[in-house]
Amino acid sequence: MTTYRQFATVSAIALAGVAAAFVLAVQSELASAQMAGSGPARITDDNRTSIPEGFREWVFIGAPLTPNGLNGGAAGFPEFHHVYVEPGAYADYKRTGEFPEGTTIVKELVLLKEAAYEDGSRDEASGRGYFADRFAGIDMMVKDSERFAETNGWGFFNFGHHEPPYAETAAAAPNEACAACHTANATHDMVFTTFYPILGRK
Amino acid sequence: MTTYRQFATVSAIALAGVAAAFVLAVQSELASAQMAGSGPARITDDNRTSIPEGFREWVFIGAPLTPNGLNGGAAGFPEFHHVYVEPGAYADYKRTGEFPEGTTIVKELVLLKEAAYEDGSRDEASGRGYFADRFAGIDMMVKDSERFAETNGWGFFNFGHHEPPYAETAAAAPNEACAACHTANATHDMVFTTFYPILGRK
Repeated sequence: MTTYRQFATVSAIALAGVAAAFVLAVQSELASAQMAGSGPARITDDNRTSIPEGFREWVFIGAPLTPNGLNGGAAGFPEFHHVYVEPGAYADYKRTGEFPEGTTIVKELVLLKEAAYEDGSRDEASGRGYFADRFAGIDMMVKDSERFAETNGWGFFNFGHHEPPYAETAAAAPNEACAACHTANATHDMVFTTFYPILGRK
Repeated sequence: MTTYRQFATVSAIALAGVAAAFVLAVQSELASAQMAGSGPARITDDNRTSIPEGFREWVFIGAPLTPNGLNGGAAGFPEFHHVYVEPGAYADYKRTGEFPEGTTIVKELVLLKEAAYEDGSRDEASGRGYFADRFAGIDMMVKDSERFAETNGWGFFNFGHHEPPYAETAAAAPNEACAACHTANATHDMVFTTFYPILGRK
């Protein structure tokens, strides 16, 4: 027959179990909410990866613009560069000022609406300028200091500079394709932080 | 003296209480995570509001650019317009194709790095173009079809076109300040959706 003391012990264990289950549920749900349903890129053993789902809902950091009209009709990265950081890495950056291992940054190219002037600009209600029309390419960089030591700690991936659908997977690019230019010109840890005022660096 | 049955009843009530507390904690934490610590604008009885915290972590929809150099040295909205939608409203829009009541859209103005050419552009590693330097203004629109019926269902707020700190509060602007131009030129429900490919409208 169950004694009073036995019942109390079983009850306490049950309570603790319920509490632990809820704590795990909170942590798991919070993590997925913060990741906007996606999360950082996962790299395979042969250094390939795919475009994380939901990256357009990540934290936007800036939109440098290199119009074809100002680059002999064919900019290297036509034309807006919409740049996003995975929210978990952004939260770490905000706290520490550094990009943590695994940081995933996506740059989506966006073509302009048809030009009215040779420089690629046109007139709209807000003035003469540059206005986005359609998505046209994805580049991505992922920080992994050991795996990508040869390209200064980041892997660089090109999923095509063309309208969607983009390539389903891409292999890490050789140093001369992307990393060399970032090594030579980027302002902090391979990222052009100077163009992204939200990052708080000049 | 406490009986076995009384103890069992008290234990069951305690268990239910702990469970309920954790469910409430999950819901509250989830809501704040999804809102990036902020949420839509709250309008006072006299039609004033403030800038929601964390708006730069909302869903980015586009960055129209009207350089001063292409607008007689003084664009109406200098120069990048970084436009963000509050995530809860964006989730509704994705599902329905319409902006729900309460939709909050923030436009932050961002000045360019110093020009090398008269058109406001300069040369960087990625080519000749336009590159952000510093935040310089906030406009905001909030959908409330009844409250803002006179300005076509949205309230418009200007927190200053200057570098931060921005105004702490702003009053809804008269029709001629913002709404009239949106009514005449915007492509869907007072929003310039045609410049924001993520919204899936031309």
